[in-house]
Amino acid sequence: MTEQRYGYFDDEKHEYVITSPFTPTPWINYLGNDGFYGLISNTGGGYCFYRDPKFRRLLRYRYNNVPVDQGGRYFYLKTADSIWSATARPMNTPLDKYECRHGLGYSRFIAEKAQIRSELTCFVPLGQTAEVYRLQLTNQASHKQDISLFSLLEWCLWNAEDDGANFQRNLSTGEVEAEGSVLYHKTEYRERRNHYAFYAVNRPVSGFDTDRDSFLGPYRGFDYPQAVENGKAGNSMAHGWSPVASHHIELSLAAGEQQTLIFVLGYVELPKEQKWQAPGVINKAPAKALLSHFDNAEKCQAELDRLQHYWHSQLGSFTIQTPDKRFDRSLNIWNQYQNMVTFNLSRSASFFESGIGRGMGFRDSNQDTIGFAHMVPDKVKERILDLSATQKKDGSAYHQYQPLTKKGNANIGGNFNDDPMWMVLSTANYIKETGDFSILDVKVNFDDEEGDFDHFEHLRRAFEHVVNHLGPHGLPLIGRADWNDCLNLNCFSEDPNESYQTTQRGDSDVAESLMIAGQFVLYGKEFVTLCQLTDRNELADWARQQIDTMIQTIDRHGWDGQWFLRAYDARGKKVGSDENAEGKIFIESQGFCVMAGIGIDDGRARQALDAVNRHLVCEHGIMLQQPAFSGYNKYLGEISSYPPGYKENAGIFCHNNPWIIIGETLLGRGDLAYDYFSRISPAFLQDKQQQHRTEPYVYSQMIAGRDAATPGQAKNSWLTGTAAWCFYAASQYIAGIRPDYAGLRIDPCIPANWPAFSVQRKFRQARYEIEVRNPHGLSKGKVELEVDGKPLDGNLIPYALYQDSHRVVATLQVDD
Amino acid sequence: MTEQRYGYFDDEKHEYVITSPFTPTPWINYLGNDGFYGLISNTGGGYCFYRDPKFRRLLRYRYNNVPVDQGGRYFYLKTADSIWSATARPMNTPLDKYECRHGLGYSRFIAEKAQIRSELTCFVPLGQTAEVYRLQLTNQASHKQDISLFSLLEWCLWNAEDDGANFQRNLSTGEVEAEGSVLYHKTEYRERRNHYAFYAVNRPVSGFDTDRDSFLGPYRGFDYPQAVENGKAGNSMAHGWSPVASHHIELSLAAGEQQTLIFVLGYVELPKEQKWQAPGVINKAPAKALLSHFDNAEKCQAELDRLQHYWHSQLGSFTIQTPDKRFDRSLNIWNQYQNMVTFNLSRSASFFESGIGRGMGFRDSNQDTIGFAHMVPDKVKERILDLSATQKKDGSAYHQYQPLTKKGNANIGGNFNDDPMWMVLSTANYIKETGDFSILDVKVNFDDEEGDFDHFEHLRRAFEHVVNHLGPHGLPLIGRADWNDCLNLNCFSEDPNESYQTTQRGDSDVAESLMIAGQFVLYGKEFVTLCQLTDRNELADWARQQIDTMIQTIDRHGWDGQWFLRAYDARGKKVGSDENAEGKIFIESQGFCVMAGIGIDDGRARQALDAVNRHLVCEHGIMLQQPAFSGYNKYLGEISSYPPGYKENAGIFCHNNPWIIIGETLLGRGDLAYDYFSRISPAFLQDKQQQHRTEPYVYSQMIAGRDAATPGQAKNSWLTGTAAWCFYAASQYIAGIRPDYAGLRIDPCIPANWPAFSVQRKFRQARYEIEVRNPHGLSKGKVELEVDGKPLDGNLIPYALYQDSHRVVATLQVDD
Repeated sequence: MTEQRYGYFDDEKHEYVITSPFTPTPWINYLGNDGFYGLISNTGGGYCFYRDPKFRRLLRYRYNNVPVDQGGRYFYLKTADSIWSATARPMNTPLDKYECRHGLGYSRFIAEKAQIRSELTCFVPLGQTAEVYRLQLTNQASHKQDISLFSLLEWCLWNAEDDGANFQRNLSTGEVEAEGSVLYHKTEYRERRNHYAFYAVNRPVSGFDTDRDSFLGPYRGFDYPQAVENGKAGNSMAHGWSPVASHHIELSLAAGEQQTLIFVLGYVELPKEQKWQAPGVINKAPAKALLSHFDNAEKCQAELDRLQHYWHSQLGSFTIQTPDKRFDRSLNIWNQYQNMVTFNLSRSASFFESGIGRGMGFRDSNQDTIGFAHMVPDKVKERILDLSATQKKDGSAYHQYQPLTKKGNANIGGNFNDDPMWMVLSTANYIKETGDFSILDVKVNFDDEEGDFDHFEHLRRAFEHVVNHLGPHGLPLIGRADWNDCLNLNCFSEDPNESYQTTQRGDSDVAESLMIAGQFVLYGKEFVTLCQLTDRNELADWARQQIDTMIQTIDRHGWDGQWFLRAYDARGKKVGSDENAEGKIFIESQGFCVMAGIGIDDGRARQALDAVNRHLVCEHGIMLQQPAFSGYNKYLGEISSYPPGYKENAGIFCHNNPWIIIGETLLGRGDLAYDYFSRISPAFLQDKQQQHRTEPYVYSQMIAGRDAATPGQAKNSWLTGTAAWCFYAASQYIAGIRPDYAGLRIDPCIPANWPAFSVQRKFRQARYEIEVRNPHGLSKGKVELEVDGKPLDGNLIPYALYQDSHRVVATLQVDD
Repeated sequence: MTEQRYGYFDDEKHEYVITSPFTPTPWINYLGNDGFYGLISNTGGGYCFYRDPKFRRLLRYRYNNVPVDQGGRYFYLKTADSIWSATARPMNTPLDKYECRHGLGYSRFIAEKAQIRSELTCFVPLGQTAEVYRLQLTNQASHKQDISLFSLLEWCLWNAEDDGANFQRNLSTGEVEAEGSVLYHKTEYRERRNHYAFYAVNRPVSGFDTDRDSFLGPYRGFDYPQAVENGKAGNSMAHGWSPVASHHIELSLAAGEQQTLIFVLGYVELPKEQKWQAPGVINKAPAKALLSHFDNAEKCQAELDRLQHYWHSQLGSFTIQTPDKRFDRSLNIWNQYQNMVTFNLSRSASFFESGIGRGMGFRDSNQDTIGFAHMVPDKVKERILDLSATQKKDGSAYHQYQPLTKKGNANIGGNFNDDPMWMVLSTANYIKETGDFSILDVKVNFDDEEGDFDHFEHLRRAFEHVVNHLGPHGLPLIGRADWNDCLNLNCFSEDPNESYQTTQRGDSDVAESLMIAGQFVLYGKEFVTLCQLTDRNELADWARQQIDTMIQTIDRHGWDGQWFLRAYDARGKKVGSDENAEGKIFIESQGFCVMAGIGIDDGRARQALDAVNRHLVCEHGIMLQQPAFSGYNKYLGEISSYPPGYKENAGIFCHNNPWIIIGETLLGRGDLAYDYFSRISPAFLQDKQQQHRTEPYVYSQMIAGRDAATPGQAKNSWLTGTAAWCFYAASQYIAGIRPDYAGLRIDPCIPANWPAFSVQRKFRQARYEIEVRNPHGLSKGKVELEVDGKPLDGNLIPYALYQDSHRVVATLQVDD
């Protein structure tokens, strides 16, 4: 079976080029960097928001709609014979040419129809709270052509949740103003809001509409608007119901002529006392100030250039060239780009996350930082300290916090017992990247205790929280759930209207997690190192003892004979054991125990990973557990609620695959590590676009496993911890370019058939040009370093000695 | 300007006939009686649910969609030349004939195209958890015609809120089974649910689809399904994403032939141990049992007949014939029908209420009972006692409770200080209707106190709650809000992300409500009567003293000179006073103080109602207050957040109009009362259908007032307290047929030009044929009664004497 392809990589332009509007799911991109963000599909669908996708949403978007992906930034072009869309939708008129080019922070749509070429470039300019749509129209004919152009946006009434539910109120609140070519959305501005939005175009209009039903006509869809059909706007003013913004512009293009229009969708806030310029008339000064940056094509181009420069400089912190172009484009472009998007949005707003459900996850956000600490270290520091401030005095953490308030989310609460230790990972990784130990001394309160606490004290309590929450076997108590949110060992839910995680029941002093045990050892060792490097030697010794005890406990109670157990449930029964009929082996504890070094010396690590290979690996990646659960088991919770092969029930939950990949590199099995990487990395899946369904340039949270009715089918693309972890695994453990406290370590574990590869790495203030040579066809070897032509002992480039631009040659030698 | 008409009343069939699919808003009907309910628009849109519209929703419906009203029960008919819909949508193919007939508990759709006639009758059978769709297809041509018929439903994954938000999970959970002509929706049945749904047709199918995207094809809408275009179902099995149910049936109709198909959408629950008939295979026995009631046309017709008989007997409890046909059809059919719908649904699910927001309101549900106590007294008793059980020991009430659990909603809480006294109204009205004083002795716990309490004790504490919560002037404290949820005197909100009502701030010991003061006097008097009738004379005396004191307090602090004040705010400032620049006069306190009899003797009642007439009455009804608030005032709250003329900000909030109507009847001004009634009663608005927008056969919550940009435009139809209050005012105070403890009182206040009218009234076990004669052209007069030809003193028919069928003649005489 040959699969249809819907697009390809344009590496030179750093773009993914989509060649059909009929992608299996809408394939999207993210716009924005500094608090103003947009989601945009390959046909212009989606929405934008300011800081919080729930409370400050500008555009309406209907998730899981019929037809799918309706609502967005629409441009209708009415030409002599037809009406068509600059983004191929909502009008479904077949185009002579269609292309969507998703780039770094912008998306470009090329459409040609009847000798008119339209090129629409959408982006969020740096430092502005606006989306800009540059529309370039070219008459490719040898005669004059007229175009009747209509823009269309539908406003969300700010609070996205309320907007989709509280019609009893919000069908009465919509208010607008129209002045020249600027259409203002001032709903609720008369009361408690100090912000409005506007939609403008940099030329006079021949009409406009602000009332949706007037524009569309009765019972019509976006693909059939009456105003466009009539070729005439209604100059409607919305009073309640659904306000929209639509400009109508009559254009006449001479043969070969190109005209450029710049549309700006902007958002502004005003101090209370400056809200009005006259009674009932909003103060338009800040809107006009924003618009003045985009009133001609040159200014607009300059902003686009600035944006591109920003992204190229971001991505320039790490670049790699290997024999495998797929590996390179993944690491150099799309994976790093995806990492930045997860930094910006965590898990809040994608085409699978409606943006109203949750804030920033404590666990997610700490892990995400390992994907971009090399790009935006200052933002990482701020993020870690924000997270630190939501920790409670007993060392536990709020599971989520709200980005607007930076306060922990009391609805969800804490007691996800893996949460605290992730902050050791993020902090250690940050210090290794930057050398900035001062983060440990920053004063941070606990959520429930103010005082003279520094961030180090938060890490200490995180460590201690595990020590203070051990179960009957001496293993860490799992709490509501550990990293696997769906393994709910302390909630025996039989009511479909309650949450699997937050309906706390049963005895929480019994169920224990081997995943947290491995995590404690792994990041506990980092904690010990941090203690030692800051002269806290007594604490280091104590912590080291705790870790040793935990290792012994894992040896005694965590080994199932061929692999590591997953957990003990609330009845003390084994989970992830050969003695279970289903769920015999889980991926998480194998990954974390091996990464922590447990069993490396005595062969159990290899045995565990061999078991993973035997039981969990399938064509599309490494499944979460096997065999799949055939029915619901209230002692295990949500994991057993999914149909077999999907999500946590034996799906390939990609986030954890890099743990095994890293584990394999610790064993030196570079071909296996690379094989696993290639099964889930989107750059390797270009021949499976139809089967995979989601965007073939970013990771998805889940790929359906062997047991599924649709194996290989992915879901929940873009916002996943997979991105950070895959970049971390590939760059630091496969390529082996690994920051350490004292400098940059070079320790590759690669496919044996790679003769060489090279890396350009910005490291703190230094820039290293690294060439790795593999003359003996090894996966892993003893690394011989040469810096600026001079040999250097060991595999570490000490930062103290090399703070400028240096050329590094690393040769893999057989290690006797 | 002549208005377009979209429909008309068919009084004989008790139907409203809609003649265009392009009604200004979707015009809907409700199906169901006993826990299974459906909303159905005039083009088949809407959804159904079992008991709770949030937690047990069967069909997906997208509110405020583009195009509007998408999702419902769809039937595609593919004939020789075209594809069209039995309900005119989702295919927008123009029909040769279209009619939607909304009847009592059913809706019928007639469509004709190319000499095929389709008649679709949708109903929820009595006592069944199912919607039945009987499709009768007739070939009106003189030659054979083939039809390729496709049904379509889209399943909601049960929890409507989650279904529209939690895509990260629910795109992976959908599961179905297909067996013969029955398509099963068993999503989450494998885990905690003990219920499934199914969609069946009573004949073999030539194919089916259960996966939405397979049926529709990529990026297509309901108006463009690929399967229909191809004339062939895909026999698709849904695995996650969006499960649907679609049958494909090939029909061949001889010239003149009619065929009847019966589709059943059913819901069943099973005990845990009977869920499966084989591993992974659901137990289909209960589905088959349900289907056996509808497997042929005769059985189906019998169920329809049973339903019609049920409704006719319900509505037969009160019928009236006056000189005004509009008044009659309103009272005899549509108002009573709307009352029953509000009984069933309270405010939970309409095309303006998404069914996920709230449960049953304490205040709403108590008031609603006055609209149907004459029809379903047993259900009213149960409802009152349910409400009683959510009262707290201090006499206050939870503002809402959940219909599934019958527990108070802790998220909203209490402290809406008018709430408790509404239970006196509902209880007194129930006893007057039924004579059943035993309701007072039923044992009911308080929400927060168990013990040996009877329902009377609940009323006592309700009364006492007011006495215990008086403010600085001795008037009742308002709490979070009184009846006007948007007058928020104790919450000074400046943050758009918080609720106006439940963010409790400020000093709640100051703001006082004149509306509660009037309500306390009015229902306090009822309480005194109840005490006296049950020999609680000491309590009666004490209560009477409290009422007298309140009347004096209103005299002293509640009269503004020309009308009653509305309130004192949290700063002690007057609200609804001539000294205010905006909001000088409010309707609620005029209504309640006059209904309570305050100022009747000294002319202030007349003065107050004259002020209402002068300041608040406009063409479309009586506005809530005047002048409208031009900007937000945090000391008043949400009321000032609406644009002027809408909702509580000087809109016509219809619920309170009957209070003024009743007040006018107490003053004897029957022409004025009738005039006010006719301004808002839908039966009188048939020439304003386009302007009014909402259904012209039921009341809406709000009609835009004089200050609005769109005066006369209604919103929030169907579920409104207006229905019960208008019926109560029209039947008990205009027609004056008023139940009292000892019997039925006859006390009309009518247009002076009515020479006579007659009423058939079921009263307890009796039936009265009442003829009211008005020989002197009076609005109100001394009533002379004749029962069965014999004169009777006074205007009361003592029930003790007349318990069978009796003929009553009441003559209005000049009262000297």
